[in-house]
Amino acid sequence: MSNNKLKTVRIVGSGLIGTSIGLGLVQRGVSVDMVDSDPQAQSLANDLIGGVGVASPDLVVLAMPTTQLPAVIEVENLLNPQSTFIDVGSVKHEVVLHVESISGLSRRFLPTHPMAGREIGGASSARADLFQGRSWILTPGTEVDSSSRELVLELIAHLGATPIELSALDHDRAVARISHLPQIASSLIAKQLTGTPPEWMELAGQGLRDTTRIAGSDESLWKEIIYSNRNELQQLLINLQNDVQLMIDSLGNPDEIAQLIAQGRAGKALIPGKHGGKAREYFYLPIVIDDKPGQLGAIFNECAAMDVNVEDLNIEHSPGQLSALITLALSQSDAEKLSTHLTSIGWNVHPIRK
Amino acid sequence: MSNNKLKTVRIVGSGLIGTSIGLGLVQRGVSVDMVDSDPQAQSLANDLIGGVGVASPDLVVLAMPTTQLPAVIEVENLLNPQSTFIDVGSVKHEVVLHVESISGLSRRFLPTHPMAGREIGGASSARADLFQGRSWILTPGTEVDSSSRELVLELIAHLGATPIELSALDHDRAVARISHLPQIASSLIAKQLTGTPPEWMELAGQGLRDTTRIAGSDESLWKEIIYSNRNELQQLLINLQNDVQLMIDSLGNPDEIAQLIAQGRAGKALIPGKHGGKAREYFYLPIVIDDKPGQLGAIFNECAAMDVNVEDLNIEHSPGQLSALITLALSQSDAEKLSTHLTSIGWNVHPIRK
Repeated sequence: MSNNKLKTVRIVGSGLIGTSIGLGLVQRGVSVDMVDSDPQAQSLANDLIGGVGVASPDLVVLAMPTTQLPAVIEVENLLNPQSTFIDVGSVKHEVVLHVESISGLSRRFLPTHPMAGREIGGASSARADLFQGRSWILTPGTEVDSSSRELVLELIAHLGATPIELSALDHDRAVARISHLPQIASSLIAKQLTGTPPEWMELAGQGLRDTTRIAGSDESLWKEIIYSNRNELQQLLINLQNDVQLMIDSLGNPDEIAQLIAQGRAGKALIPGKHGGKAREYFYLPIVIDDKPGQLGAIFNECAAMDVNVEDLNIEHSPGQLSALITLALSQSDAEKLSTHLTSIGWNVHPIRK
Repeated sequence: MSNNKLKTVRIVGSGLIGTSIGLGLVQRGVSVDMVDSDPQAQSLANDLIGGVGVASPDLVVLAMPTTQLPAVIEVENLLNPQSTFIDVGSVKHEVVLHVESISGLSRRFLPTHPMAGREIGGASSARADLFQGRSWILTPGTEVDSSSRELVLELIAHLGATPIELSALDHDRAVARISHLPQIASSLIAKQLTGTPPEWMELAGQGLRDTTRIAGSDESLWKEIIYSNRNELQQLLINLQNDVQLMIDSLGNPDEIAQLIAQGRAGKALIPGKHGGKAREYFYLPIVIDDKPGQLGAIFNECAAMDVNVEDLNIEHSPGQLSALITLALSQSDAEKLSTHLTSIGWNVHPIRK
């Protein structure tokens, strides 16, 4: 990048996202000033990333809870009347409306949403590469200046993310369906476990574990996201509730139950596979191993020796036993090749399942 | 086992479970006769496991859909009036009631439920070790003969499973909560994806994938399970529906939203970790790798060299990029040791997250 225009950035908010952006930009030679309403947090964040004082920044990043955003936009716009702005919140429609209500700001303000994991918080968890290979959604209005857009695209490129443009409304609808509703449902499933005797919980399998994994998320983050996207979520929750009612009404009729389960299977099939491509047909190769160091390494050595690419892996442990079942997800040809090879050298491989 | 009493077993039903039991027993020297209402399936299953004709079997295994069970029990009890019986269905209360209605049968009939994966079906998917290290639940009535109980425990031991005794009612309540309700919820979440534009689906992350994994299950199996356990499921579904309503009512109030998410987190914390023990506190070590053969093997080699035990692993692929983020779950000391080591030899390791 010989024509870098992004020289100075002011980041307001020193949580995980703000500090990670700061770390990544400093590594790419951009001068960054971390700002926080808490002076101690501000000083810590600047120490952490090597922040410097910046006057008239090219770009201001607003990285704080969405409920605080309107007040901060007001102040920061007065302080930096020439700067380009982005926010990084998980919900976009309200931000767009607010920005459009401030004269001239929508030319310089791009609402954005980096799709990076946020299940942990705080500056100390920040990583310069948090956004590498992730999507970074932009929901700009029609009035945005091309110079502002270029600065924002430069920031995203610096951080290794892929820009994707959507309307704010489409963004909010999309994340409500693929992220916020699953979060709520996972939390509510996990809530049903309240009071379950420990001896019943011992019977829990991988299905329960997968379904409730994100129920471990932080409520202080999610209360903001869900609240901000409540308009999109309301109808989705009503739809879910209606489908729960349909299942209740179908409990006495196996064919109606089957229909609901089949509709779920069809919905799941819409989720694309890795690399943003279509869902691949993986073949699954179960292997029983001793649950001790060295076993996985030995298997992956064989994979490398056979030029086999492992697409995914699941490790399942048996209660009260020191063996484990690992399942490798592979292409059909890799699965056949590896199964034959591992079996021939004595591994406990089981028939390939599609 | 010098005092083996289990010499001959008749298995009625040649699906995954029945054929897997047959395979495992034959490997332990037991004579097995596979029986199926479909003569071709019966012949195939006997060929597959090395089945033989068996008269007056010590034990009869009933391995067919629960809706067919009452009629089959009737016939098999007339054919084998001295034999011990088990069934292997996922729901137990109805079976117990039915067995108790047949004079003298409850002395010889133990309802059981092997907790083995059944997301795929058919004799061709059968594995002799399907039950190894799994729990095998028994829900015997009070009248059961000790000689019958011993035969069943011998069968379970042959197959490498761990017997666990529960009342039929407790069993059905437990699996409704930890298995059947999560299955229904996962299917209904996935159903909400119906009609979502492909470009929105491209934004799907690991949370959606985990939450909907079991929505890929087979509806012909699950319609039976859900139907059979409808009495236990009804109240759980009503509870879930009430909680969805609570969330709808809370959408305008961030603190109420937070409370529901926090209750979900508390419920999830009740799920025990591997080996049937309490949930462990894992440390998560994220590593960015090239998505090509050899990378995982090299990392697991280092794990083995450092005597580090990988508890679990997640592979996350970035859309449109040929790099992958793998996250290893480790004990704290292993995580620290491995992080230092991998960093020192040039791997792209990121700060340890708890």
